[in-house]
Amino acid sequence: MNTLNETHDPCLRSWVSSAQDERSDFPIQNLPYAVFRPRTSGQAWRGGVAIGDEVLDLAALAHAQLIQASDPLAPAALNAAAQETLNEFMALGPAHWGALRRALSRLLRWGAAEKDALQQCLVPQAQVEYRVPARVGDYTDFYTSVHHATNVGRLFRPDSPLPPNYKWMPIGYHGRVSSLLISETEVRRPRGQLMPPGAPGPTLAACKRLDYELELGVFIGPGNELGQAINLDEAEAHVFGLCLLNDWSARDIQVWEYQPLGPFLSKNFATSLSPWVVTMEALAPYRLPFTRPSQDPQPLPYLDSPTHRTQGSIDIQLEVRLQTLAMRQAGQPAAPMSQSNYRHAYWTLAQMVTHHAASGCNLQPGDLLGTGTQSGPEPGEGGALIELTLGGQQPLSLPCGERRTFLEDGDTVALRAWCERPGAARLGFGVCEGQVLPASP
Amino acid sequence: MNTLNETHDPCLRSWVSSAQDERSDFPIQNLPYAVFRPRTSGQAWRGGVAIGDEVLDLAALAHAQLIQASDPLAPAALNAAAQETLNEFMALGPAHWGALRRALSRLLRWGAAEKDALQQCLVPQAQVEYRVPARVGDYTDFYTSVHHATNVGRLFRPDSPLPPNYKWMPIGYHGRVSSLLISETEVRRPRGQLMPPGAPGPTLAACKRLDYELELGVFIGPGNELGQAINLDEAEAHVFGLCLLNDWSARDIQVWEYQPLGPFLSKNFATSLSPWVVTMEALAPYRLPFTRPSQDPQPLPYLDSPTHRTQGSIDIQLEVRLQTLAMRQAGQPAAPMSQSNYRHAYWTLAQMVTHHAASGCNLQPGDLLGTGTQSGPEPGEGGALIELTLGGQQPLSLPCGERRTFLEDGDTVALRAWCERPGAARLGFGVCEGQVLPASP
Repeated sequence: MNTLNETHDPCLRSWVSSAQDERSDFPIQNLPYAVFRPRTSGQAWRGGVAIGDEVLDLAALAHAQLIQASDPLAPAALNAAAQETLNEFMALGPAHWGALRRALSRLLRWGAAEKDALQQCLVPQAQVEYRVPARVGDYTDFYTSVHHATNVGRLFRPDSPLPPNYKWMPIGYHGRVSSLLISETEVRRPRGQLMPPGAPGPTLAACKRLDYELELGVFIGPGNELGQAINLDEAEAHVFGLCLLNDWSARDIQVWEYQPLGPFLSKNFATSLSPWVVTMEALAPYRLPFTRPSQDPQPLPYLDSPTHRTQGSIDIQLEVRLQTLAMRQAGQPAAPMSQSNYRHAYWTLAQMVTHHAASGCNLQPGDLLGTGTQSGPEPGEGGALIELTLGGQQPLSLPCGERRTFLEDGDTVALRAWCERPGAARLGFGVCEGQVLPASP
Repeated sequence: MNTLNETHDPCLRSWVSSAQDERSDFPIQNLPYAVFRPRTSGQAWRGGVAIGDEVLDLAALAHAQLIQASDPLAPAALNAAAQETLNEFMALGPAHWGALRRALSRLLRWGAAEKDALQQCLVPQAQVEYRVPARVGDYTDFYTSVHHATNVGRLFRPDSPLPPNYKWMPIGYHGRVSSLLISETEVRRPRGQLMPPGAPGPTLAACKRLDYELELGVFIGPGNELGQAINLDEAEAHVFGLCLLNDWSARDIQVWEYQPLGPFLSKNFATSLSPWVVTMEALAPYRLPFTRPSQDPQPLPYLDSPTHRTQGSIDIQLEVRLQTLAMRQAGQPAAPMSQSNYRHAYWTLAQMVTHHAASGCNLQPGDLLGTGTQSGPEPGEGGALIELTLGGQQPLSLPCGERRTFLEDGDTVALRAWCERPGAARLGFGVCEGQVLPASP
């Protein structure tokens, strides 16, 4: 796992003034990656790094030849990160990722000699557009919050909310790649078969119980060969970084279709991702011990290690906000729906990776994992409406006198995440946002 | 749907003599596509068409400029089909596919003026290697045989073998793309969590109940935009063709992990594909009416149409053979395990495509669907060992005095398929084969 180094020093300041704003998600200690281009320019996509309100254009930086070969890995890493997807960079692994981070941190620090030349490589974030930062080969969604699993399980299976395997393995299933969307892409309400209780048969109709799911997305680095497992203590060397992920879900389609082979149309119409990928190295100051309640089964040996127990978890604050059309028209800001923390996950990133590869399944650079909905232990901390409204039975009150059980057309959902604690720089993930469009006619 | 034309004429003969062998899978009426290169040559991959025992090298054919522009679509189709994957060709759609098929049929016919020049473009199949013919964006596996669903459901859920949604929708789930393998690639026995009945907890171990599944693979053509559905009568215009697919399955891992989100490690270690993709146009003589038992619910309107009722199904013979190491060493050929027919599928290709896109999910050129295990109605027609051995309770007897409940290391499984009926040329799919390797140490 990553250790603290000069790039994490909370006293570091950047010559990019907006990075000094204490509310900024992107101080010099963060340095997350995206793929971007100037908006409506039709220019080539290229890698970028967020600093304050700016994007450092890595293609321009590579062209300017400002990275000195003090660390021989940094120039190769920069060339890979400057491409039109981050796959090549993700494939390089932690040594290259760390070399580029250190080089960028030095270039962007207060007093850097290269400041004048670097300013030519900055583009305001307000002037760019993003896309999904990797060519995703496979997307696997997990189910790692025991609170979410219990809350939802109670609605779908009142007698046995938590499946018997839940506390033994990080449950996952394969998701749809073609409908991965970058934040701000609108999401069309899906159609599917609905089978209301007591109906004589299903009908094809627009989803009436459209929901969001508050998740983190996990981009895979080097990965493994087919047939080779990944040891738990090596698992995070295969994790490039994290973003926000909204696993839009059609609950009424899901409840009728999901047995026996899992969710299908209820999930495959859209999954939204935030543009910025926060690296595992940036998250090093926020590691926490991984613990289990003593009455719970302890993980099997392949999912357990001393290092993992010491720092397997991560302290990431999570938040969902909702803005309805009426709120937007009234100038009312998005209302908070819930907060949670990734520290509550029952299964960690390393356990997800190791379990996924235990069969010999090959993970590849740019593959995406979802953590599953991250709900906290308290009633108001559900990461999806189905939890907050008890399956639609308890509507939520919103500003402007509205109520919601599930999402309505025009609603905009915004996910956010950040890390903060005394003695470390605050980091943010930016936003993962999407507005619901009406179903096709 | 495709209608019969000059390329289907059963009297057509090719100047490639091996294509006249009545046991050949690849007469001139078939003309399936693969991606190949001369074995161990390190040369570029390129598209090819099977004719008898030969591969017609489409890159060489394009270079030789033998396709006349009598049909203006044919040269563009040839250029696309000659690439290192078939994605671009699949994206073109039925008009282009048909133009190239007609042009190739004319060039390969007995008496073709281009014979001498074309002979330079032939490579013996015995001298080539293949790869998965498309860059698969997403792989979705279905569950369309009601006989398989009932047989397996009885073992997993004795009280209600067939889930209540089964007769209303083609159930599908997302599969793993990274472990799609071309035929003849060896398959390593997976590890995973096993939880024998009555055990106090699971253990991580090598699968003890490794199985095959006899399926057809379906390559998608042009596809749809996100948010747009696909009408049933247009669905087959988005199907390029079919291959054989072995959905290797770890039954002991599956039974413990699959609730509530579906199969994961039990399937994601390997899925094998035959190299040759038989086009939907080639299958036109083998179309059959799609019918339902009158006591069953008739399909919802979006999954039903007069054209579909007339010819929604396809008459394709299916077969599995098994050769153990002992049989191989004794010079004993592979033993037949079961036969079935794709006509028994409860849900058709068109229904799979239309249902998949009903949510607005976008299908893309080169996407792969699996039909699910194709079992026939009779007891010996199960498409997987779990059916044939009643969950491992009734071992099968093999030559050389061996018995099998599930696959053992060294076993080779071979899937085959063919079409034959009076008045039409016999077509075959070639073989999808794989040998089981021991689990990693």
